[in-house]
Amino acid sequence: MDIKKIEQIIKDFSANRDWDKFHNPKNLAMALSVETSELVEIFQWLDFEQAANLSEDKKEHLKQEIADIAVYLLRICMHYNINLEEAIINKMKLNEKKYPLFDKSGKKIEYGKKN
Amino acid sequence: MDIKKIEQIIKDFSANRDWDKFHNPKNLAMALSVETSELVEIFQWLDFEQAANLSEDKKEHLKQEIADIAVYLLRICMHYNINLEEAIINKMKLNEKKYPLFDKSGKKIEYGKKN
Amino acid sequence: MDIKKIEQIIKDFSANRDWDKFHNPKNLAMALSVETSELVEIFQWLDFEQAANLSEDKKEHLKQEIADIAVYLLRICMHYNINLEEAIINKMKLNEKKYPLFDKSGKKIEYGKKN
Amino acid sequence: MDIKKIEQIIKDFSANRDWDKFHNPKNLAMALSVETSELVEIFQWLDFEQAANLSEDKKEHLKQEIADIAVYLLRICMHYNINLEEAIINKMKLNEKKYPLFDKSGKKIEYGKKN
Repeated sequence: MDIKKIEQIIKDFSANRDWDKFHNPKNLAMALSVETSELVEIFQWLDFEQAANLSEDKKEHLKQEIADIAVYLLRICMHYNINLEEAIINKMKLNEKKYPLFDKSGKKIEYGKKN
Repeated sequence: MDIKKIEQIIKDFSANRDWDKFHNPKNLAMALSVETSELVEIFQWLDFEQAANLSEDKKEHLKQEIADIAVYLLRICMHYNINLEEAIINKMKLNEKKYPLFDKSGKKIEYGKKN
Repeated sequence: MDIKKIEQIIKDFSANRDWDKFHNPKNLAMALSVETSELVEIFQWLDFEQAANLSEDKKEHLKQEIADIAVYLLRICMHYNINLEEAIINKMKLNEKKYPLFDKSGKKIEYGKKN
Repeated sequence: MDIKKIEQIIKDFSANRDWDKFHNPKNLAMALSVETSELVEIFQWLDFEQAANLSEDKKEHLKQEIADIAVYLLRICMHYNINLEEAIINKMKLNEKKYPLFDKSGKKIEYGKKN
């Protein structure tokens, strides 16, 4: 994923419309949660099977909500100069420590060794 | 951003812990909204200036919440074979149409022409 | 439910701690969404049957999250002098209009006539 | 607030439309979070002053979102036989313990004594 290119598209889109004044981190956090709920809305009344097998229309809708979430998430990253890729990899390492794996003898398995 | 690599890390992490059974799209949508609120929580009592200038500790916390959101978002993409980069670019094109730009004479500016 | 009494408890609690300065509507909206997600968190990995039959511990936890949501909701009502009971009854009337009922002959049933 | 009456209205509304099958607690939790975000959406781009002084139109919109949230919250209470008033009062007592008050000499003030 070409993050630099995407960030540039987002930056230009907002600057061209003079929307940067609204896009402070507190507002962006609210907007992020609103978009996330628009994704949740797609699934709210579905059972697990229906949710796992969305119609093409709903899948198209889902894609758009996923994009909206990603855009606000990147916008927050841009404000704080956060490298999203690094942030994800570091967090997954923390998760590995938080939820360690054990081999059959009960010995802890070091990160990245199982697969 | 090397999406394939990150998706593999996420996939292995879940498979190794036998968590795939929980990670159906309906549950993932709920988890995504929970993580988003953990990000919102950082900002809830701050004014705009405090929010824009987080301490290093809070910024580190923010990074982790951003990563959690991205991981669940990618997990949903993986379920439906959604290409996140494509989804973002397509959505930004829709946004360009939804919120068109006009030049000084009032003429609509075609996508990508202003910058 | 004695709303006046509850509102007084909430008002005193906040005033005694000098927290009114944080409890503006924008912040309260964020806090409301954070508390709602703490309720969602209880259910996120459960199937429908597990969700419908919470353990006593989880039910106690649920009660506390419900209370937190209600408190912030009332706090927002208090700011705008909104009467919660009236708001609910008026909204349910709108819902009746939005989703009308029909009798067997296909005739629209007037509000409140079916039961 | 006449909770019994309101609960009856909600119950009839859902039963008349055969919607009870959708209103299990997991789905209701999702719907609650969706409605909460519709309230958040009203405030997302506003500064504190704008948020504190909504136009009549927006205040009317706010009322409806508040009602929607309350309805789903009560629907969850109804499923588990939770008494909302009791839940709020008990939670406020816990909050008093969690955030104790102190008099000028630094002595802890007992619950309900300050006002």
